[in-house]
Amino acid sequence: MVSKNEVKYIQSLYHKKTRFEERLFVVEGPKLTGEVLKSTFTVRTIYATAEWLQANGSLGGATVKEVTPEELSRLSHLQTANQVLAVVEQPAEPGNLREDQLSLVLDGIQDPGNLGTIIRIADWFGITQIIASEDTVELYNPKVLQSTMGSFLRVQLWYKDIGAFLQATQQPVYGALLNGEDVTTHSGIKNGLLVIGNESKGIRLDIMPYIKHALTIPRIGEAESLNAAVATGILLSHVVKTGG
Amino acid sequence: MVSKNEVKYIQSLYHKKTRFEERLFVVEGPKLTGEVLKSTFTVRTIYATAEWLQANGSLGGATVKEVTPEELSRLSHLQTANQVLAVVEQPAEPGNLREDQLSLVLDGIQDPGNLGTIIRIADWFGITQIIASEDTVELYNPKVLQSTMGSFLRVQLWYKDIGAFLQATQQPVYGALLNGEDVTTHSGIKNGLLVIGNESKGIRLDIMPYIKHALTIPRIGEAESLNAAVATGILLSHVVKTGG
Repeated sequence: MVSKNEVKYIQSLYHKKTRFEERLFVVEGPKLTGEVLKSTFTVRTIYATAEWLQANGSLGGATVKEVTPEELSRLSHLQTANQVLAVVEQPAEPGNLREDQLSLVLDGIQDPGNLGTIIRIADWFGITQIIASEDTVELYNPKVLQSTMGSFLRVQLWYKDIGAFLQATQQPVYGALLNGEDVTTHSGIKNGLLVIGNESKGIRLDIMPYIKHALTIPRIGEAESLNAAVATGILLSHVVKTGG
Repeated sequence: MVSKNEVKYIQSLYHKKTRFEERLFVVEGPKLTGEVLKSTFTVRTIYATAEWLQANGSLGGATVKEVTPEELSRLSHLQTANQVLAVVEQPAEPGNLREDQLSLVLDGIQDPGNLGTIIRIADWFGITQIIASEDTVELYNPKVLQSTMGSFLRVQLWYKDIGAFLQATQQPVYGALLNGEDVTTHSGIKNGLLVIGNESKGIRLDIMPYIKHALTIPRIGEAESLNAAVATGILLSHVVKTGG
């Protein structure tokens, strides 16, 4: 049984303001919930169907509530609710950034699907640190979490004044720009920061002075630009050193 | 003035069945409409605000209807209607495929954003031919068109039984797979077909026998997979020969 107040409370967690005040977020579906349960994140409450509960034994210290599929769909943000939904505690912001590796810097990524996809790409290429400008879309937005496909559990993300951050850093700063060095002929980067710009405006003018190495994906055809997440994937596939 | 029947008719074009029967599709916004007007596509009707009409002179043979922003929002499929909407004729399916270049083959891409992004990526890398399986999402879906950012005007797309097509082709067939040759050390491909699989299932079992060269994006971290459009972008950035 789910009370009206519980439905209202879960629904309120689909708003950024409430997530921020409560320091909680929601994940949905067996895949993502399963990954969160195996991680170091603290799951506060699980709403699940009898079917899911039968298939999943140990659930740590979480409060477990059995719900009907109809009740679950009233709690859910998805078009088709899927067996389980979990309320999870937001961890504290990660500690010190490590400067011995390549990290990403995001300058105002707005689309939740793009941020999620960038986190998934970072995880694929072994990038574990992302510094996002304060106007980048919020990590705990359900669409961001869903499109990370679980990679938000393995990639650390800080929200920072990236101008001040880039001014202070000792690491080499690379940027995705249209008139830089051809990335396909660039040698690997072991240590540095790669700045990715906003979907339509690119890298902001006041961030430009900090970009010491401009990298470009050569264009052969006529498209004006590439999607920000696609560009991130292409750049990382060329600059990340793969063993050999 | 827009009649109720006109609103109903335009709205019906947001359904695949009606688009197919009428051989028409809809584009929205000044950017996309402007590109369509400059292309060889035939624009049948333009619904635009006075502001847009003042700024845009010659409109070819299209019927032009001035609408208020309120009327436009009743015609529009977008959350925020934007100055102009055009009803465009679907061109006949393109003619013979050219076999002297690299083309993409899509095996069941389902997400409209992914198909649109793949067309935009193809256009960036100078790929002008895409062969899609019959269960791939329809090209004239408004979300597909919007996410191509105009690239659907420059890339030709055929819907085919790709099993029969791949069986009959004389071109070398490459496929994006998890256990193939490292694409980052692969030399350029001047001529061939690159098969991209479905978002969750990958390349279908009955298509596998036609893949003669498996290509893989090396994974360093822990993400299980990459988004289909991101993978396409990464693969093309490595296999497309860039002049030198």
